[in-house]
Amino acid sequence: MKQYLKIDEWSIIEESFDPGTQEISESVFSIGNGYMGGRANFEEQYSGHSLQGSYMAGVYYPDKTRVGWWKNGYPEYFAKVLNSTNWIGINIDIDGTPLDLAKSTVTDFRRVLNMKEGTLSRSFTAELEDGKKVQVESIRIVSMARQEIGAIRYSIVPLNFAGQLTITPYLDGDIKNKDANYDEKFWNEVEKQSAEDSGYLTLKTKKLDFHVTSAMAFDILVNGDKTTAQAEAIEQEKYVGSRVAIAVQPNDQVVIYKYAANVTSRNHGLGQLVDAAKAALDSAREAGFVTLLTEQTDAWRDKWKESDIIIEGDVSAQQAIRFNIFQLNQTYNGEDDRLNIGPKGFTGEKYGGSTYWDTEAYCVPFYLSTADASIARNLLIYRYKHLEKAKENARKLGFTKGALYPMVTMNGEECHNEWEITFEEIHRNGAIAYAIYNYVNYTGDQSYLGQYGLEVLVEISRFWEERVHYVPRKDQYVMLGVTGPNEYENNVNNNWYTNRIASWTMEYTLEALAYLQENEPARYAELLEKLELQDSETGKWSEIIAKMYYPVDEEMGIFLQQDGFLDKEIIQVKDVHPEHLPLNQKWSWDRILRSCFIKQADVLQGLYFLGDRYDLDTKKRNFDFYEPITVHESSLSPCIHAILACELGYKEKAYEMYLRTSRLDLDNYNNDTEDGCHTTSMAGTWMSIVHGFGGLRVLNGRLNLNPSNPGHWTSYSFKIMFRGSRLLVSVTDTQVTVTNETDIPASLTIYGQEYTVNGLSSVTAQGTNITA
Amino acid sequence: MKQYLKIDEWSIIEESFDPGTQEISESVFSIGNGYMGGRANFEEQYSGHSLQGSYMAGVYYPDKTRVGWWKNGYPEYFAKVLNSTNWIGINIDIDGTPLDLAKSTVTDFRRVLNMKEGTLSRSFTAELEDGKKVQVESIRIVSMARQEIGAIRYSIVPLNFAGQLTITPYLDGDIKNKDANYDEKFWNEVEKQSAEDSGYLTLKTKKLDFHVTSAMAFDILVNGDKTTAQAEAIEQEKYVGSRVAIAVQPNDQVVIYKYAANVTSRNHGLGQLVDAAKAALDSAREAGFVTLLTEQTDAWRDKWKESDIIIEGDVSAQQAIRFNIFQLNQTYNGEDDRLNIGPKGFTGEKYGGSTYWDTEAYCVPFYLSTADASIARNLLIYRYKHLEKAKENARKLGFTKGALYPMVTMNGEECHNEWEITFEEIHRNGAIAYAIYNYVNYTGDQSYLGQYGLEVLVEISRFWEERVHYVPRKDQYVMLGVTGPNEYENNVNNNWYTNRIASWTMEYTLEALAYLQENEPARYAELLEKLELQDSETGKWSEIIAKMYYPVDEEMGIFLQQDGFLDKEIIQVKDVHPEHLPLNQKWSWDRILRSCFIKQADVLQGLYFLGDRYDLDTKKRNFDFYEPITVHESSLSPCIHAILACELGYKEKAYEMYLRTSRLDLDNYNNDTEDGCHTTSMAGTWMSIVHGFGGLRVLNGRLNLNPSNPGHWTSYSFKIMFRGSRLLVSVTDTQVTVTNETDIPASLTIYGQEYTVNGLSSVTAQGTNITA
Repeated sequence: MKQYLKIDEWSIIEESFDPGTQEISESVFSIGNGYMGGRANFEEQYSGHSLQGSYMAGVYYPDKTRVGWWKNGYPEYFAKVLNSTNWIGINIDIDGTPLDLAKSTVTDFRRVLNMKEGTLSRSFTAELEDGKKVQVESIRIVSMARQEIGAIRYSIVPLNFAGQLTITPYLDGDIKNKDANYDEKFWNEVEKQSAEDSGYLTLKTKKLDFHVTSAMAFDILVNGDKTTAQAEAIEQEKYVGSRVAIAVQPNDQVVIYKYAANVTSRNHGLGQLVDAAKAALDSAREAGFVTLLTEQTDAWRDKWKESDIIIEGDVSAQQAIRFNIFQLNQTYNGEDDRLNIGPKGFTGEKYGGSTYWDTEAYCVPFYLSTADASIARNLLIYRYKHLEKAKENARKLGFTKGALYPMVTMNGEECHNEWEITFEEIHRNGAIAYAIYNYVNYTGDQSYLGQYGLEVLVEISRFWEERVHYVPRKDQYVMLGVTGPNEYENNVNNNWYTNRIASWTMEYTLEALAYLQENEPARYAELLEKLELQDSETGKWSEIIAKMYYPVDEEMGIFLQQDGFLDKEIIQVKDVHPEHLPLNQKWSWDRILRSCFIKQADVLQGLYFLGDRYDLDTKKRNFDFYEPITVHESSLSPCIHAILACELGYKEKAYEMYLRTSRLDLDNYNNDTEDGCHTTSMAGTWMSIVHGFGGLRVLNGRLNLNPSNPGHWTSYSFKIMFRGSRLLVSVTDTQVTVTNETDIPASLTIYGQEYTVNGLSSVTAQGTNITA
Repeated sequence: MKQYLKIDEWSIIEESFDPGTQEISESVFSIGNGYMGGRANFEEQYSGHSLQGSYMAGVYYPDKTRVGWWKNGYPEYFAKVLNSTNWIGINIDIDGTPLDLAKSTVTDFRRVLNMKEGTLSRSFTAELEDGKKVQVESIRIVSMARQEIGAIRYSIVPLNFAGQLTITPYLDGDIKNKDANYDEKFWNEVEKQSAEDSGYLTLKTKKLDFHVTSAMAFDILVNGDKTTAQAEAIEQEKYVGSRVAIAVQPNDQVVIYKYAANVTSRNHGLGQLVDAAKAALDSAREAGFVTLLTEQTDAWRDKWKESDIIIEGDVSAQQAIRFNIFQLNQTYNGEDDRLNIGPKGFTGEKYGGSTYWDTEAYCVPFYLSTADASIARNLLIYRYKHLEKAKENARKLGFTKGALYPMVTMNGEECHNEWEITFEEIHRNGAIAYAIYNYVNYTGDQSYLGQYGLEVLVEISRFWEERVHYVPRKDQYVMLGVTGPNEYENNVNNNWYTNRIASWTMEYTLEALAYLQENEPARYAELLEKLELQDSETGKWSEIIAKMYYPVDEEMGIFLQQDGFLDKEIIQVKDVHPEHLPLNQKWSWDRILRSCFIKQADVLQGLYFLGDRYDLDTKKRNFDFYEPITVHESSLSPCIHAILACELGYKEKAYEMYLRTSRLDLDNYNNDTEDGCHTTSMAGTWMSIVHGFGGLRVLNGRLNLNPSNPGHWTSYSFKIMFRGSRLLVSVTDTQVTVTNETDIPASLTIYGQEYTVNGLSSVTAQGTNITA
C-alpha cells in the first residue's frame, strides 16, 4: 500500500510521475460514461509498464475455457469484456525521437481526475535524452452527453529548441486482452480508411460478430492558427493514422484537438456503422471541444445533484466517497437493460464477465436511492431476461427443475470454472430473489412481481426445493456441498446463510403468490399456467421453510457459519502476526480453508439482508464472534461490517471499516488496483454511509433513518430518492435535517419518530445517539 | 466398452484392423523393459488417429503449470514423462505411394502381444488405392536382456506387381507430448549423423538438460541376400534416416532388420553418449535378431518363473492376470532406485508424473511377493531420497515441521495442481509410512528402520502432529479439510481413513523407535540427534493416538467416511439408472460431490490395511454399507473390494470385482484405454488373487494363507517369494498345495494351521471353505 495521491475534495491528483505506480494510476484515473470507457493511458506513446485499455460496454468475447483439470459441468467459454480500439493515441515525435515518458526526464508532472466535471487532465515538462524540452498539457473526456464521443485537447510547447514535431493521431485496433486464455487476439479487421485529418476503422470480433467502428478527426493549431502542414495518411493492419510534421520555434504552442466516435453493432445496423460514427463525429467536431467540455460539466452537475455525499471535517473521507460515486456513475447509467456492472467497470479487464451477485447485493441499493426507479428495475429485468439460460444451467447440473443463475455471466450463460464457486456458491440465487424484494419494498412498485418478478422467484424456489434434501434422522432439510459468501470455506454442509436465504426465498415467493392471487387474480392465473405451478410445490416449500435445518451454537447463542464450524481452532485476526496478512497472499490455500478466518460477511450478510427479523442482541452476539475472525480480504466485506457496526453502536469499528472500503483503490489496500478498480464494491462504500451511518432502512415500505456520526466528521449529508421525492439528509453532531428537494411530500421515520417532509421543506430531528 | 481382442492364455490377439480401436490397441500392445518402452505404433507411416509414443524411464520435463485459477501453494511445474525419439519408424513407399493402413484395404490383419516371450508381432495384407498388394510381417522387441536395445524384423512381399519399394528406416526426434500444457515441444537437437545403413541423433530437453542419444542400424535382405541397393542418407531437423530403393518382382521377400539403441545422460556422461549408443548398437547387430529374440524369451521365462499365476478353467481370467503381470514386469524392474512406477507405464503419457501413492498402496505388495526384497526396498528408498523435498513441501504449505510427500512427483517435488488433491489428499503420507511397515513385516528386514525407515516415519508423524488440532469441547483431536481416498468427496472434516492412518503412523513410529532403542542403541542415539527428536514430540503423539476423533455411527456400527456422512441421501448404486453411469462422465461434479457415491475404497481401504485390528463383524458391517454405494470409478477400487469380499466369503462379489479389475484395459471398461493402460492398478489385480482369493496375510512376520476358489475356476496357482523361499500355491476346489521351489524351508499358516514346507517339497491342506 502506497499513498501517493493528493487529498482533495473533488479531485484525484498525482503530482509527480513514477513509472512504478503508472498502472495503478491508469486504473484510478479511468474515465467512462456507462457506454464506453478506458484506463488513463497516455495519449503519446509510452514504453513503460502499462495496460492499454479501452472498453465498450456489452462487447465481449467467449474465450475458450482454460483449466488445469476439467470438471463435468464447466462452461466451454468465459465471456470477457473486450479490450478494443485505442482511440486516444496521439504519438509525438521530436526531431526523430519519440516523446515517451519512460525515456524522458519528467518534471512538473500533474495528473488530475476532476470528478466534479468529469475530465482527466495532465501536464508535465519532459526533457528528452538529447536535452530537448517540451511542455505538455492534455485534457480528455468521455462524453456523458454524447455516449459515443470522446475528445482530447493536447497541447505541446517546445521550450528550448527549434525543430520538427511530428504528430500522429491514430486509431489502433491491434489490441490484445491481457487475460486472454490462450494469448489470442480477438479482433479481425473489416474495413478502414485514413484521410488527411480523419480516419475510421471497423473491427469485428472473431466470434459472435460484434462490430465496432471507431472514427477520429483532428485539428492542429500552431499558436492559435490552424496548421497548413500537410498530413500523410497511414494505414496498417487494424490501424489508421495521419502523420503531420510541423516546424516549431521555442515556445510555439501546438494544440491538437482529437475527436473520436466509437459505435457498435449493438446499437446500429452493420451497414450503418461507418455513417453513424461519422455523423456522431462530425457533430462533435462541429460543436467543438469547448462545447463538449461544457456539456460534460453540465451532465456531471446533474449526476452530483442526485448522488453527492458531503462529508465535512474529513477531506480524505470526502474525496473517497466522491471517487466511489464517480466511478459508479461512469460505469453504469441504467439506460440499456442489456448491460450490467462489471467488477472492474471500464478500469481493467480482470474477472472478465460482466455480472456477479455484486450487482444485486451491492449495486441495486445504490441505484435504488440515487437514480430513477427504472434504473434498478432494468438491473432486475436483466436477470429476468436470463431466466431461460438460468434454467438451462440448472438442467446442466442435473436439476430437473428450477433456475440457477450463473456466478459470472455476460449473456446469461455461466462463465466461471472453479467447481467450488461455479457449482457451489449458489447463494447468489438468493441475492437475485432478494433484489426483487428490495426493489419492490423500496419503490413500492408491486407491479413488478406480476410482470417479471414472480417467474424468477418461482424458478429460484424450485431450485432450492430440489437442492435441499430431507434427512429422516433429523426430521429436517439440509443443504450439502455449498460455498457461502465466505469463499475461504468451500464445499461445506449447511452454510447458515445459504440455508437461510433459500428458505427466505421460498417464504417471499409464497408471499408474492398470495399478493398476486389477491390483487392481480387474472395475472395470477396466467402465471400459474405459464409456470405450471403445482400445489404440491408450494406445499413442499412450506414444509421446507418449517423444517429447514440451521446450524447454531446454543451455548454461545450464535448461528454457525456451517456444520462443525466450532471444531476449528478459533483465533482472532488481531492475534495473527501481521507478516501473515493478507492471508490470500501469504498462506497456502488449504491453510486458509481449514483456518477459522473469514474472507467476507457470511452469517453477517444474512443478518444484514434480513435485519428486521433479528434482534440487536442476536446481531451483537454474532458480530462479536464473527467480525474479529474476519480478514476482510474481499472488497465486499468492510461495508457490510460497517453497516452492522453502526447499528450496534460500534462507531470506531464502523469508521475503520468505512475507511477500508472507501479508500480501497485510492490507497491500493489490496495491492491489486493496477488490474482495475473494485467498481462493484464502491456501491458498498456508498451503503456504509447511507445504510451504515445514515441508518437507512425501508421497513414495510416506510423509510427509516437512524443516523449516527462516526465521530471524525463535523457533519455529513447524503441524498436519497424515495418514491418520487429526493431528500437531502444532513447529519451533524446533534441533529438530523431532512430536506425535501422535490415537491412530492415524503413520510419517514427518524429515530423511531414519524415525520412528513413536505415538498421543498425540511424537518429536523434532535439526535441523542448521533455521537458515540 | 468394446471387446475385440481374442481370448488366449498367453497372448493378446487382434484379428482385424479397425482404425477406431487403433489407439486402444496401441496402449494394450505396448512393450517395454523397465528402462524404456513405447506404444504399439506401426513401423510404417500411419495417417489415422494415433498417439506416437516412445518413453525413456526417468527422462522428464517440468512443464509450466496450467490452471484456470491459481491457488497459493501450487507448484510452478508439472513434471511429465517425455515422449522421445521414435526409433521404430520404417517408412515404406511403393512406386511413389506410401504404405499407410489408413489409406489401404487391409486383410488378414493380425497383431499379437506374446506375453510369454515378450514380442509384439503383426501381419497383414494391404491393397493400396492403385491395386498393388503387399504382405507384411513384423516382429518387435524391447530387449529385457539389453536394456538400451530395441529390434525389429520387418518383412514385405509384393504380391501382384513388379516395381520399386523405397524403404526408409529413420529416427525422428521431432516429437511433441500430447498433453503439453502450452503445446510446446520439449526437445532441442544436439547432434546427428546419417550414414548409409545407420545414423544417430542426440536430443536434449529444453529444461534440465536430459540428453538422449538414439542410434540405429539396419540390414535389408532381398530373398535372403543382403541388398546391393545404395542408401541415401537423409538429415532433417531432429531427424535422421536412410532411403533405400529396391526393385522388386512379385513374391520377392524384402526383410529389414532394424536395431536401435537409446542411451541417456542419466546413465552415461554427456561426452560418452554417442559412443555408448554405438557400442550397444554394434553389439546387438552383431548378435543378430535371432539371438536377441532368444535372449528375450529367456529373460521372460525367468520373470514368469517368479511371478506367473495360472488359472485353470477360465481362459479369459488367465489371459487377464498374465496381461497385468506382464505390464508390471515390463514397466518396472527395481534395478534403478531413481525410478518408480508411472500410472501409465510406457503405454501413454497421461497423468505425467511418475509416482503416486499407488506405488506404496498397490505396487509394493506385488514386488514384495514376486521379486527379490531389494526391489521393494528400492521403491522405499526412492521416497527416502525425497525426504528433504517432502519437508520443503510441508514448509511451503505453512507447516513448521514434518514432511508431506507429494501427490504426484518425479523428483520429489509436487507436480499436481488441484487444491482439493494437492493440499488435501494427505492420506498419501500414511501409505508411505504403511509401505515401510509392510516391507519390514513381509521381509523381516528390521535393519531398514535404522537405515532409512525411521527418519521417514518421524517426519511423517511430525506432519500429522501439526496437521491435527485439539478441540477442547470434544477433548479430542480432529483433522479438518482433507480429501480421503474417495476423491468424490473433497475438503471434508475427519475422514475416518485419514485420521486412522495418521494415528496408526504415530503408533508405528513409536514402535519403531522402541525397537531401535532396544536393538540398535547406537543408531537410535544417532538418529535422535540427527532428527532432534524431543520427548515432548513423542509424548504428543501418544496423546493424539489416545484422543484421536473417529466419526462413527453407533447405531449402524460403522465408521463414518467423514463427519456428517449420514446426512447424505443414501442410495445404492443398483438403484441408479444405468444411464447415469459412470457418474464421472454423466454427472456434474457438484452432483457427484454431494451424493453418497464413493469412487474407491475409503473406510474399506483402512480396514484392508489395518485388517488385523478389526474383527470380521466390523468389516462386514462396513463392507455391507459402503460397497453398495461404491461406483468403483477408480481403477484402484475393485481390487480392495475383491480382497475384502473374499475375506467375508462374498464370493460372487469378489469374482465380479476381480473381473472388473483384471480386464479393465483389455475390455476398456473405463473407456479411456486409448490414453494408456492403468499400470499401477494392475498390481491391484494381482493383489485380488493373492491377497484376495489366496488370502495371503503376513501377521507378526508369519505367512498366512486362507485360499478360496471363486467358483468359476477349476483351480488356480500363484507364486510368492517369502523370506528367501519361493512358494507355488495351488488351489483346487478341495485343497491347497504349497510347493517350495527353493531349498530354503518356509513356515506358514494355512487355514489357521501351522505348516513347515521344506526345500523342494510340498504340503497340502484340505480346505473346507475353499468353495462357496
